Amino acid sequence: MPASARGFGDDAAVIPWPLGLELVATHDMLAEGVHFTPDCPPADIGWKLVAVNLSDLAAMGAKPVAVLMGAGIAADRDPAWARALLSGVRQALDRFGGLLVGGDTILSGPVSVLSLTALGSVPHDQALGRAGAGAGDDLWVSGTIGDAGLGLQVALGERGADPFLLRRYRRPTPRLALGLALRGVATAAMDVSDGLLLDASRLAGASGLGVVIEADRIPLSEAARRSGVPVPVLAAMGDDYELLFTAPPGRRAAVEEAGEAARVAVTRIGTMRAGAGLVVEEQGRAIPRLASLGFEH
Amino acid sequence: MPASARGFGDDAAVIPWPLGLELVATHDMLAEGVHFTPDCPPADIGWKLVAVNLSDLAAMGAKPVAVLMGAGIAADRDPAWARALLSGVRQALDRFGGLLVGGDTILSGPVSVLSLTALGSVPHDQALGRAGAGAGDDLWVSGTIGDAGLGLQVALGERGADPFLLRRYRRPTPRLALGLALRGVATAAMDVSDGLLLDASRLAGASGLGVVIEADRIPLSEAARRSGVPVPVLAAMGDDYELLFTAPPGRRAAVEEAGEAARVAVTRIGTMRAGAGLVVEEQGRAIPRLASLGFEH
Repeated sequence: MPASARGFGDDAAVIPWPLGLELVATHDMLAEGVHFTPDCPPADIGWKLVAVNLSDLAAMGAKPVAVLMGAGIAADRDPAWARALLSGVRQALDRFGGLLVGGDTILSGPVSVLSLTALGSVPHDQALGRAGAGAGDDLWVSGTIGDAGLGLQVALGERGADPFLLRRYRRPTPRLALGLALRGVATAAMDVSDGLLLDASRLAGASGLGVVIEADRIPLSEAARRSGVPVPVLAAMGDDYELLFTAPPGRRAAVEEAGEAARVAVTRIGTMRAGAGLVVEEQGRAIPRLASLGFEH
Repeated sequence: MPASARGFGDDAAVIPWPLGLELVATHDMLAEGVHFTPDCPPADIGWKLVAVNLSDLAAMGAKPVAVLMGAGIAADRDPAWARALLSGVRQALDRFGGLLVGGDTILSGPVSVLSLTALGSVPHDQALGRAGAGAGDDLWVSGTIGDAGLGLQVALGERGADPFLLRRYRRPTPRLALGLALRGVATAAMDVSDGLLLDASRLAGASGLGVVIEADRIPLSEAARRSGVPVPVLAAMGDDYELLFTAPPGRRAAVEEAGEAARVAVTRIGTMRAGAGLVVEEQGRAIPRLASLGFEH
């Protein structure tokens, strides 16, 4: 959105800010050995560093403006690794929007640790959030769930090669166009990063409600279906970077139009209700307490 | 400046942006073993993480608005360490301004790696930068030079205990009030982080000029003077976080008034001139090429 930003060469970037827009800011880190394996292609790491932050902007209904990147590079990485990392950052920004306006590169010791701040804009009072759902609202999710979790197993060699699943893990797509289209339609939204079930229970909690999820409705890719992994397990895997959001039943057509406009599937998977807690139903019956809802941290 | 910002609990922070102000953004990282020793008090690390970023805002003439923090905590640190780190962050924000609006805490593996993005505001077209100096401009610096470099030697046990020097290294003061007062007065500015001589040659290069520095004029604290370390060596040590800036000779009174208003000493140490390169003079004679101008990275 700034055609250009001053700042490379100065101590900080200067970004002209459009009148009447609010600033939306998020900051996520990725660490080697925790969020990516040492052998992960560096361009994929750079892509994911951008994507996970832009996914937070998407969840707020914000449009990317600028990013600042911190690259803590392990002492034993060669310069080509850092260059490829940056090329992945630039690929994702070219695809999704946002200008790299500054940052810092340091030696970080034994492992690489990366940080990124994404800055976005949203019209006054139109940002989405987790706290706005009402009792009786539908719960929706974009795309398909569990692919990235299965892709992590592929990356770790725990599952046979599958380029689709691996790509869903390493090159997530932030649902920015959907986030924009949901302004004024969704009552609450967040991105699914730690597992659908855990994140749905967080959204419900932030809205002061309970939530019922119909497991049979959770959208799966062909690859996830073929995996034979039970739906409640897929729904407790992380790294989906899909949008989870609520809207009153009267807005079902509007939600489907938003998905159409953003060219991503949107699926109704449950209902918000008064009270608290998460219930997962399969074929109309609540299933017993699950071992894990997602990635707690 | 935002009385409050929405966002804790949401995927990102929402910051109302004042009409007509530009956004100034900077992002610096600190890594254990590189920027701080493992035994450094964590509250001091948190303070410095804020201070080095706010120093970049000061150099731009910007006022702090908000910060986002990334805390990559080494696996063997206990929770009290992370809490003390955060208390240092809050102490610095309370002192200098800026609201902590978001961030990320992760396990970072064997060492701690910290990142911070500082967001500031500046009226349209009033940001300072490195490129505006003119031939004949005076070169000025705030505060005293070399204390932090000597303080690092104290921290490493290479120099006898000295609370003043150690504090100048661990708890730097970003010159925010001076940066604001220099808007419309200074023609170029930057902060001194990698050594006065190296940073002065960078400012000159960005402005397409050369620079002559009179070593006898470089301001020293009593402690630095007492150290017996030669001035050109002190001026090649890093971590000062003072402001280095230029202004035409006709503005000397205005610069001194800015220092007075900001309650920090300002000292004229040299002159910008046509051409390129750095000359350091002692008693009117150029001294031979120095072994080091500062911390190159």
